[in-house]
Amino acid sequence: MNIKKIIRDKNLFSIFEEATIGIEKEGQRVLLDGSVTTTDHPKNIGNRQGHPYIQTDFAESQVELITPPGETEREVYRYLSAIHEVFLRKMPQNEYIWPMSMPAILPKEELIRVAQFDNPSDVEYREYLVDVYGKYIQMVSGIHYNFGFSQKFIDELIASTKLDEVTVRNELYMKLARQFIRYQWILVYLMGSTPIAPNEYFYKYPKPNSPVRSLRTSKYGYVNDDSIKVSFDSVEDYARDVRYYVDNKQLIAEKEFYSSVRFRGSDTVLDLAQKGIKYLEFRLFDINPFAKYGITEEDIRFIHLFAMNLVLLDEEDKFTSIKIGKDYSEKTALAHPLSLPENMEEAKCVLNSIVDMLKEGHFDNKDIEIVQSKIDQLSSPENTIGGRLWTLYEEKQDMAKIGMELAVNYKNDALEKYYSLTEFSNMELSTQALISDAISEGITVDILDEQAQFLKLSYKGHIEYVKNGNMTNRDNYISHLIMENKVVTKKVLEKDGFRVPKGYKYQSIEAALRDFSKVKDKAIVVKPKSTNYGLGISIFSTGIKNIEDYKKAVTIALKEDKEIIVEEFIFGTEYRFFVLDGETKAVLLRVPAHVTGDGLSTIEQLVIKKNNSPLRGDGLSSPLKKIKIGEIEELQLKEQGYTKETILKEGEIAYLRANSNISTGGDSIDVTDDVHDSYKKIAVEIANSMFAKVCGVDIIIENIKDEANDSNYGIIEANFNPMMMMHIFPYKGKSRRLTEDVLKMLFPEKYN
Amino acid sequence: MNIKKIIRDKNLFSIFEEATIGIEKEGQRVLLDGSVTTTDHPKNIGNRQGHPYIQTDFAESQVELITPPGETEREVYRYLSAIHEVFLRKMPQNEYIWPMSMPAILPKEELIRVAQFDNPSDVEYREYLVDVYGKYIQMVSGIHYNFGFSQKFIDELIASTKLDEVTVRNELYMKLARQFIRYQWILVYLMGSTPIAPNEYFYKYPKPNSPVRSLRTSKYGYVNDDSIKVSFDSVEDYARDVRYYVDNKQLIAEKEFYSSVRFRGSDTVLDLAQKGIKYLEFRLFDINPFAKYGITEEDIRFIHLFAMNLVLLDEEDKFTSIKIGKDYSEKTALAHPLSLPENMEEAKCVLNSIVDMLKEGHFDNKDIEIVQSKIDQLSSPENTIGGRLWTLYEEKQDMAKIGMELAVNYKNDALEKYYSLTEFSNMELSTQALISDAISEGITVDILDEQAQFLKLSYKGHIEYVKNGNMTNRDNYISHLIMENKVVTKKVLEKDGFRVPKGYKYQSIEAALRDFSKVKDKAIVVKPKSTNYGLGISIFSTGIKNIEDYKKAVTIALKEDKEIIVEEFIFGTEYRFFVLDGETKAVLLRVPAHVTGDGLSTIEQLVIKKNNSPLRGDGLSSPLKKIKIGEIEELQLKEQGYTKETILKEGEIAYLRANSNISTGGDSIDVTDDVHDSYKKIAVEIANSMFAKVCGVDIIIENIKDEANDSNYGIIEANFNPMMMMHIFPYKGKSRRLTEDVLKMLFPEKYN
Repeated sequence: MNIKKIIRDKNLFSIFEEATIGIEKEGQRVLLDGSVTTTDHPKNIGNRQGHPYIQTDFAESQVELITPPGETEREVYRYLSAIHEVFLRKMPQNEYIWPMSMPAILPKEELIRVAQFDNPSDVEYREYLVDVYGKYIQMVSGIHYNFGFSQKFIDELIASTKLDEVTVRNELYMKLARQFIRYQWILVYLMGSTPIAPNEYFYKYPKPNSPVRSLRTSKYGYVNDDSIKVSFDSVEDYARDVRYYVDNKQLIAEKEFYSSVRFRGSDTVLDLAQKGIKYLEFRLFDINPFAKYGITEEDIRFIHLFAMNLVLLDEEDKFTSIKIGKDYSEKTALAHPLSLPENMEEAKCVLNSIVDMLKEGHFDNKDIEIVQSKIDQLSSPENTIGGRLWTLYEEKQDMAKIGMELAVNYKNDALEKYYSLTEFSNMELSTQALISDAISEGITVDILDEQAQFLKLSYKGHIEYVKNGNMTNRDNYISHLIMENKVVTKKVLEKDGFRVPKGYKYQSIEAALRDFSKVKDKAIVVKPKSTNYGLGISIFSTGIKNIEDYKKAVTIALKEDKEIIVEEFIFGTEYRFFVLDGETKAVLLRVPAHVTGDGLSTIEQLVIKKNNSPLRGDGLSSPLKKIKIGEIEELQLKEQGYTKETILKEGEIAYLRANSNISTGGDSIDVTDDVHDSYKKIAVEIANSMFAKVCGVDIIIENIKDEANDSNYGIIEANFNPMMMMHIFPYKGKSRRLTEDVLKMLFPEKYN
Repeated sequence: MNIKKIIRDKNLFSIFEEATIGIEKEGQRVLLDGSVTTTDHPKNIGNRQGHPYIQTDFAESQVELITPPGETEREVYRYLSAIHEVFLRKMPQNEYIWPMSMPAILPKEELIRVAQFDNPSDVEYREYLVDVYGKYIQMVSGIHYNFGFSQKFIDELIASTKLDEVTVRNELYMKLARQFIRYQWILVYLMGSTPIAPNEYFYKYPKPNSPVRSLRTSKYGYVNDDSIKVSFDSVEDYARDVRYYVDNKQLIAEKEFYSSVRFRGSDTVLDLAQKGIKYLEFRLFDINPFAKYGITEEDIRFIHLFAMNLVLLDEEDKFTSIKIGKDYSEKTALAHPLSLPENMEEAKCVLNSIVDMLKEGHFDNKDIEIVQSKIDQLSSPENTIGGRLWTLYEEKQDMAKIGMELAVNYKNDALEKYYSLTEFSNMELSTQALISDAISEGITVDILDEQAQFLKLSYKGHIEYVKNGNMTNRDNYISHLIMENKVVTKKVLEKDGFRVPKGYKYQSIEAALRDFSKVKDKAIVVKPKSTNYGLGISIFSTGIKNIEDYKKAVTIALKEDKEIIVEEFIFGTEYRFFVLDGETKAVLLRVPAHVTGDGLSTIEQLVIKKNNSPLRGDGLSSPLKKIKIGEIEELQLKEQGYTKETILKEGEIAYLRANSNISTGGDSIDVTDDVHDSYKKIAVEIANSMFAKVCGVDIIIENIKDEANDSNYGIIEANFNPMMMMHIFPYKGKSRRLTEDVLKMLFPEKYN
């Protein structure tokens, strides 16, 4: 099977390029001094058993963050980032993720606990490994890189070779595995970064005399006994050898055979010959301390291109490649981090052949640049990851300090914009929050349409779709159509006996006067149909007594708009009730944009100060919006006798807006625990009346402490797809994690 | 209780004007010769028992059409029209509704069957009436007018008088009842129209010597024995008297007491004193032969204004008014239809006082005009309804002929635009069809928002909301969001294993060429993203073989648009599958706008001929759209070598459009019975895959007779809220009454 020829002849580069990639990244949870923590795996995230994103590896302290398989490096990196951010925000406040493969400080052996899985056999396997390999070596972390070609590419190879799919897959991936082992030394050169280790670590072989590139990928790392020799000549040979050692109890299980490449696609190597290899797992990579998430997006791409090229490169000799490759790799791993490559010619040749492939296949220039920077590093080892780390160490002489500075920075970055997922910040905040919670809980998230905020969630085969954070199949079609239509909403609410303010519309004084008897003695508001900053509004809060006052109010309102509204006036303040699945989960007070004086600052200065909060931004990628000082705000200030230069007394409040919308700089204040239960019940009943599972109900309430009666509240409206961010990240008061409630509603089986 | 003073002092006219009105209109089903039919009440409409709109009165042949209570004359009239249209379309082809109160031809007594209700006591009551009153008199039809003031008005009276509600109601309605009886003679003068009757009718009293205004409201009509004398002085007196006759078996039941006014609001008159009168039923009115539905909208308004005014008028003497009123009424009823009023002064005085009221209350000018035309009729009896009918009779001398000409016209009007409800034609056709079916089935329809096509349906307490004909709570929120989003739809369908054409988008020749291997040898279509009349489209239906052809196609497409689509080409024709509640209810072929030659006419003439079909109109108020001949159509003709002046050979087809949309003049052809079941199953599975109860699936099929396999069909898209009209009123093929299916889905308990 001459893959190179097939790709060239059929110009298959674009199909050849399609791949599925997944990253598994281990990391020790450490304390501020760099010591490994002895706490349990966090309990505030979903059970590790079957968790698709967050698991533990060997030790209880060693978290393993796993991306879903992605078709582009971008996709993989976004998930890698999001999973990190979720974990960093959920882990205990005093813990961090150690940003290197090798811990700087090893705990006492007796303090190391193997991961406490629910399944006893998972724990037993780890206890066995402790017996054979000791505990320290298992404190080392790494990155596993899963890599598979697309089915389309496999199909093309089948079409060209007339071979069956299993043969094609096994030939392709066996070649890639051999070639990877043969040339992995170049990757160790470029990316190895475990130069030293604490003294206790060297219990088996003596400690090297000088720093090295990668203890982890050398004999000091996780390697089998020298007696274990497995052939990579063919799948059959490989399977035969691995099984031989397992059957002879030299390995407790197939997975105890450690290699920089593992074949994936069946539960046992015995099936590979029948089922075919699905994809490879490259287990070579040290954690890059300089990459927030252990590996850069460019390096994910580079490894992909490197692997593609290995498939195109002719094999020297498939029977010797394993041995030669391992030798080179070991030498490179144990060389000084600032030394030149073992075989400069070979490294240049391989990397240049990648560039040739990229050019021939019309790849993007960015790809060529990535490879070119690696080529440059061949002659400047100080720019390799290991080189950079060692240079830094020579300066600071304290690996714990170096690591913790990075770890603290990485965690602080994640905490700073705690309401957002950096790599998904193009999506709505509520969708980001839902993605975060799903990742944390171990519910698989697929993004079906980013712009449309369309997610697919799945948990143990149960699939749910969510749009805009809380639009799901729990709500029915007609429900949001009712709420969308204010006329219909009012009719339905009135029919069900809720207090909805009655209103009348008029286009002439005469028509309004004719109806005076309908509102006489009632508390009413007379207002233009549309109005700016309150012009033309008259409120008769104690009841309209005489027709002269009424006529005056109507006349004023009609000056502002062709149509006016005369509406029942309801005393009190408007609150937003968030109802989900038959329960009021949150109640919010929205206060119009305002500042409170300190006796020193001008209103403008107070606005700038208030706007400095990390919660305030454009109101889309931030939970609150910065207060503007524009025409409307200046007029609003003027009505109170202020200008933006006014210095407010301490405690004096100036409003910059009459309306309380968050979108015009309003504040959100959670009052869920302060509101009398009777209103929460009313909100639920209104949601039921709308047939809605998720519903935002706006209620005007005279006094939230009083029990609701016939006259002390009024319904303003019911909203479908209500905003969640203002409840999750209120300006004041308790956060209500509504996205978690959405997940509980969708996956009750997980929570019950 | 001085109602007039209260209204004046508080200027309550606009509240006083608010009322609830309902019309019940009886009508004999007749054959073309004017004879009453002997067939059963139609079985293709909902069971009469508890039917809110369509019942039978005394006789099986006598249909009673009932409007729901409405708050405006407009509303009442719209329902009156709709219910008539529904019944006229559903009744047997050879039957009509007799447009007068008095039949022109009476059937032999033994052929008259009392209405065959399910409930035996309903039948027994009618049999009793036959014994007492004979059958003939019961062949007479009339209009009952239900009238009640608004609760708001009652509340105002309570507030002003400090009386309790029952007292207020009973005083108000007792006065109205007495005043109505006192002055009803004016209404008989204006609206009486039963001048003569067949000879058999006069079995009790001798036939009058000359024609009269209203046999029906005179002693020749449905009246109690002279010995029955009931007081209207108070509710208590009234109840006492009625019960006396019932208890003494002079009346079989309270309802056997016939009066032009009946009190409504309790099951027995005994409760009225405690419960209060809810509203009145005026039973006076003869059917107006010149009104399509027995009464004009203006007359509904006139009676309303007349009644209002009666409440304001001072009573002469409440103890004598009943007798005086009955005397006047009887005299008026038995006077010649062309004679002047019995008491011109009184009539003028009463009608003028209405005008005074209207002016004082600032009523609309239209109201004054309505009353003014009645005032004019006082001195021109030939313009009263009875006068007009008699004038016509004098000319034609054949009441059966006169009646049947009108009846046939009225029915033809209803049949002509059979797909529409005249008075609801501002709404969507599918909503009109749903309203029709609900009316027919006896499901109560409330229109919550006309513009939004929002209906509330109820049946025995079970409430459903419907928007745009088929958007209901049976479908869930996420389902239409999935279908609305073509990207997400494709992902969901692909995941579920349906054959969806794959496509790629490109903006440059280079990018397209790089992907050539992805489509090589496949049937594809290369097209600009947006295109007019097919420019720039290349189809490789047998597979794209070489890159040169591909490059050429891409180049051509890129000339038409910045972005092009290379898409899998699926052989066949597109069909629309309408899936509802797990079943494919209809399959439709849409054929592009075209004409078929006759060897004589030009294309333009053929288009005009085709457009003459009553099905064709603007495509909104008609099921199909008229074909236009514009720029696009002329170009389309040109591509086939035609101009609009071309005379097509017989059977030769010219297409005026490439696209098959109904909205551009396409034809709809029902093929439900021709399509292989396998596709219907696929359509249902796709609806399930979208979680949709109602779904329109567009499938391209090679041959609808063949069973579906992996390669002979492809899914184009799935649509929520799919159009129903094209299935209900196809150009060719069987009509599929999908609105009935919607009702069956919503109210299974009614159909099971």
